[in-house]
Amino acid sequence: MTTIKALIFDVFGTLVDWRTSIARETQLALAPLGIAVDWLAFADAWRAQYQPAMEDVRSGRLPFSKLDALHRRNLDVVLSAFHVDVDEVTRQHLNLAWHRLDAWPDVKPGLDALGQQFWLAPCSNGNISLMVDLARRNGLRWDAILGAEVARDYKPKPAVYLSAVHAFDLQLSQTMMVAAHASDLAAAAAVGLRTAFIARPDEYGPNTGDRSPDFAEDFVANSLLDLSRQMSAL
Amino acid sequence: MTTIKALIFDVFGTLVDWRTSIARETQLALAPLGIAVDWLAFADAWRAQYQPAMEDVRSGRLPFSKLDALHRRNLDVVLSAFHVDVDEVTRQHLNLAWHRLDAWPDVKPGLDALGQQFWLAPCSNGNISLMVDLARRNGLRWDAILGAEVARDYKPKPAVYLSAVHAFDLQLSQTMMVAAHASDLAAAAAVGLRTAFIARPDEYGPNTGDRSPDFAEDFVANSLLDLSRQMSAL
Repeated sequence: MTTIKALIFDVFGTLVDWRTSIARETQLALAPLGIAVDWLAFADAWRAQYQPAMEDVRSGRLPFSKLDALHRRNLDVVLSAFHVDVDEVTRQHLNLAWHRLDAWPDVKPGLDALGQQFWLAPCSNGNISLMVDLARRNGLRWDAILGAEVARDYKPKPAVYLSAVHAFDLQLSQTMMVAAHASDLAAAAAVGLRTAFIARPDEYGPNTGDRSPDFAEDFVANSLLDLSRQMSAL
Repeated sequence: MTTIKALIFDVFGTLVDWRTSIARETQLALAPLGIAVDWLAFADAWRAQYQPAMEDVRSGRLPFSKLDALHRRNLDVVLSAFHVDVDEVTRQHLNLAWHRLDAWPDVKPGLDALGQQFWLAPCSNGNISLMVDLARRNGLRWDAILGAEVARDYKPKPAVYLSAVHAFDLQLSQTMMVAAHASDLAAAAAVGLRTAFIARPDEYGPNTGDRSPDFAEDFVANSLLDLSRQMSAL
């Protein structure tokens, strides 16, 4: 077993609770304007536009655009669907709700513990400034911000995982992808990375999260602290 | 005066004392093999190859190569010039001496103080893994690692400064380049960044460092703590 030197992380869902955070931020932005919608349904609808928007980039139909730009395009679609019309300033502020997401409670202590042994970086589809805002808000310490904006393509395209490994000057088997989503881990494993599955059963609401994927991931944990304990025990 | 939101830093010379660190690391690697040279002269000779090697990339004669690779090519030249022949393993270890540089004493407390107010990133010609090793060794906290490897070109080409500003989603006037070298600051100012000069009078030996440049930089300081005090006093 090659020594693992770096952990790279999925962020939305794995480290941060985007759903209740987006619902809260949407309510904070729109309720004072007299608007009332189902805030969780709004969050789900906005998130539902996420994969199709990235697919436009992955397929080459759209040149690489930061996730902030895709989120904004998606926001306009969702506001329309909810029959909500607000001004440009409100839209810009609401779009940055994705910079104001709260981490799951185990994430800061878990990263602090894992960072004692391993290099840590997000390998997210979120852009660099979004990652910086989430890190500042939640007290997360990264060695570098890697992922889609550095690779100029979106997961699960192999280039995104490979660019993170290349930035750290590591071998594939020295790098482990940590995620709550089977598809992300399957793509990372396919290019040769190690994998750790973190259960986030409440990502889309109670008991909605992915089960552990059906291939042989290196670790299965129910929190980052659990992962840290398992890795320390080796 | 636009509000400054991020500081980006030159690293070699501005934050770390490459000269005495490289001399020490070279001695540590070669003296046990019975080799004795003027270690400071060796460090100076290695550093003297730095700009010409990057110029091969800046001019397009060489595709972008990480600084680790340029340092290795330069190391082979300098070993030859000093009539030193060592094996491949020793060369690889010695080449990573640039990952083992010590920060000037004010740098960690200075960045800790500046980080309370501003986003911080290196904007160095060093590659990402080199920046991570220096940060880990010296306890430096960065919001992101920006610079040459992200831009895939070398300072003082405008693309390197611009890519850092773009990654942070800021305007040029919201970003300040901090460096001990007039040429670096002049290039940053030319594309529209704010500038801060940090005096490092001993970079190449006692009283060898650059004087403050002859254009109107925003700040002139003798340490990062001094810069932090000046910026807090505004």
